[in-house]
Amino acid sequence: MDYEAFFRGELDDLRAEGNYRVFANLERHVGAFPRATRRRDGTMANDDRHEVTVWCSNDYLGMGQHPAVRAAMVEAIETCGAGAGGTRNISGTNVHHVELERELADLHGKESALIFTSGYVSNWASLGTLGARLPGCVIVSDALNHASMIEGMRHSKAERKIWKHNDVEDLARKLSQIEPGRPKVVAFESVYSMDGDIAPIREICDVADQYGAMTYLDEVHAVGLYGPRGGGVAEREGLMDRITIIEGTLGKAFGVMGGYIAGSAAVCDWVRSFASGFIFTTALPPAVAAGACASIRHLKASDAERLAQRRNVALLRARLDQLGIPHLPNPSHIVPVMVKDPVKCKMLSDILLDDYGIYVQPINYPTVPKGTERLRFTPSPLHTETEIEKLAQALHALWSQCALARAAA
Amino acid sequence: MDYEAFFRGELDDLRAEGNYRVFANLERHVGAFPRATRRRDGTMANDDRHEVTVWCSNDYLGMGQHPAVRAAMVEAIETCGAGAGGTRNISGTNVHHVELERELADLHGKESALIFTSGYVSNWASLGTLGARLPGCVIVSDALNHASMIEGMRHSKAERKIWKHNDVEDLARKLSQIEPGRPKVVAFESVYSMDGDIAPIREICDVADQYGAMTYLDEVHAVGLYGPRGGGVAEREGLMDRITIIEGTLGKAFGVMGGYIAGSAAVCDWVRSFASGFIFTTALPPAVAAGACASIRHLKASDAERLAQRRNVALLRARLDQLGIPHLPNPSHIVPVMVKDPVKCKMLSDILLDDYGIYVQPINYPTVPKGTERLRFTPSPLHTETEIEKLAQALHALWSQCALARAAA
Ligand SMILES: Cc1ncc(COP(=O)(O)O)c(C=O)c1O
Ligand SMILES: Cc1ncc(COP(=O)(O)O)c(C=O)c1O
Repeated sequence: MDYEAFFRGELDDLRAEGNYRVFANLERHVGAFPRATRRRDGTMANDDRHEVTVWCSNDYLGMGQHPAVRAAMVEAIETCGAGAGGTRNISGTNVHHVELERELADLHGKESALIFTSGYVSNWASLGTLGARLPGCVIVSDALNHASMIEGMRHSKAERKIWKHNDVEDLARKLSQIEPGRPKVVAFESVYSMDGDIAPIREICDVADQYGAMTYLDEVHAVGLYGPRGGGVAEREGLMDRITIIEGTLGKAFGVMGGYIAGSAAVCDWVRSFASGFIFTTALPPAVAAGACASIRHLKASDAERLAQRRNVALLRARLDQLGIPHLPNPSHIVPVMVKDPVKCKMLSDILLDDYGIYVQPINYPTVPKGTERLRFTPSPLHTETEIEKLAQALHALWSQCALARAAA
Repeated sequence: MDYEAFFRGELDDLRAEGNYRVFANLERHVGAFPRATRRRDGTMANDDRHEVTVWCSNDYLGMGQHPAVRAAMVEAIETCGAGAGGTRNISGTNVHHVELERELADLHGKESALIFTSGYVSNWASLGTLGARLPGCVIVSDALNHASMIEGMRHSKAERKIWKHNDVEDLARKLSQIEPGRPKVVAFESVYSMDGDIAPIREICDVADQYGAMTYLDEVHAVGLYGPRGGGVAEREGLMDRITIIEGTLGKAFGVMGGYIAGSAAVCDWVRSFASGFIFTTALPPAVAAGACASIRHLKASDAERLAQRRNVALLRARLDQLGIPHLPNPSHIVPVMVKDPVKCKMLSDILLDDYGIYVQPINYPTVPKGTERLRFTPSPLHTETEIEKLAQALHALWSQCALARAAA
């Protein structure tokens, strides 16, 4: 087999479909978030750079530039060094990991927490281990769960049942079809990041309880952002104690990197002891743990970032409505503007970037199903009113220029 | 089902077998590597701390404390902030990622490189994607390949054939049993980290060529350490161009965190475009990429660390031989002292830690097969002759005290 020809052929197919991805090369500037310098071909040449406003970051609150986060990281680098130097078991556990796990357990009102190298790995490893080691386990999974959860479930080889997205009746139906004695895990998210809708957590927990199922909740797009201390949607609704395992990331609202689960001492210790994706990998750098810890602590005590974000989200939505730019209504901080065509979506994004200095990545397959391509805006507390107005006007102009459908008034 | 009781029961079983793991809580000190402060129960109380010498770090050369690495990280944090703020595709690509990928491609003499959040994820995602998407693919895997490779192959659902560890004849036999037209990937490591033995790379490539197979080489325990520029064992032996994909980590000899593959432009672009574990996760923090880049650059130019490490490895081996402490002979930098019992292994490690201030983690199941438990020492350029002598004398005393078998003279 000619391997090179095969790889090239598949890449050509992606290009033909409009699904070939080109990464924007960006350099965000501390003190100037959400602005960044874009390098067109990644060289260091000056004439190749231009300034853009980032409108699609998952550093939702700008904590990545927060002085307390940077100071904690720099301090840890200067005292403990760059990396952990080993897996958690073999010389890689540092005081900053231990503190971070305590901070996370406290954030979610749980006995314990366990950190992973990413949110992806935390989902993949935790669901993978539950599915593989709970004898006869069935995982009951929301239809729109994230790739990392799906890969973990697939990997576990456990039986899997898919329930209609956010549909509690369908969940009950699926659970009722499973033999009562079998272990069951209901896996879902709070905020779904592509549509920005939010799960009916209380109803899901009620049904799970009725059928004796564990609950596994991905709060990746909610931690730091919802609840009085940033514990997520389950905190806001007073439901954290109803969830067996809460999973989150340190790489989005907390602005750093890493993932975790929080739950009982036994379940965290069990995942710690059996999950390949936890055991056989170098631990997070102490500085990353220290930065995440500082970020969580800040957002536990401060509501200012969350309030300013909400105000900006409302402002952008109001302006889009006034200008007739169609966007998915939802109760979260995510503003999806639907384009429904990969080529148009990429074209709009290119014009916004080149002509308006507005960077929003086109979201296409495989991140969303084909035919639901979109621009996904994430207003932060740091976008100014002027930047919001500039974005709204740019979309307004493009909608006319490209004869795109307006929302009904 | 009583989930809590199940988790507790499995943990009790681990305890009964002697396989329950307790992580040592350590704080390494910049300027004082390989020494660290150990906190017995992880509290901040002063009387709970003591100083130890770390003898099992995978920060093999102490690059985690190198001034150039720390400076690059601090600089990136102060200018670009803490985290990447997104997946590589959605606002998360920074100039430091692009530079790191160029540096890695250059290190291995390849057209391209692609970075992942860890070496674990790079193996899992790359082998998983190759196995799943190359139609009819068979992965031919060395019997002792690392967990991350095994999980990737399992996940791919591709047919898998296991060849006897480092046995080229058996590899040829396995390859000869596969229909000639099918795509084949020969997956192996250069330095096997638990026994410290090294694969016959040239012979493996010859056989792979004969049968038209791709080669996938994990150099995780070799990059930075072997070859004139730290390109690994394949560099040392002039074989990098014979390997289709070279995989490595940024978290061991390079002292930071992250993983990568290097190969043709097409294969890297293809994995970039299709690997779930690459696509759906927050990118490495720019500072981590910058630190890794600085470390690679340093070790490309400097041989001093490699030479000093080799001298210390030879010195420790010589002293163990003189004292009759049995250790696995091998041509690498890893010194495994075999104990072959999980309880004794843990006991030796506890005494070394508490009575001698020597930290070496007992290596037990599932990292090594049951019955092959060991202490695994990794002398670095930073261990002094006095520390090496102290370790040798401590083992000598323990071998007498515990009536352990000596090596035949
Ligand atoms: C719902 C969801 N879960 C998990 C992840 C993975 O988290 P991380 O980026 O920390 O790997 C993501 C996105 O990246 C996500 O959208
Ligand atoms: C052979 C091998 N490959 C891959 C890995 C994973 O690399 P990382 O620690 O960067 O996840 C390890 C150890 O952790 C390893 O020993």
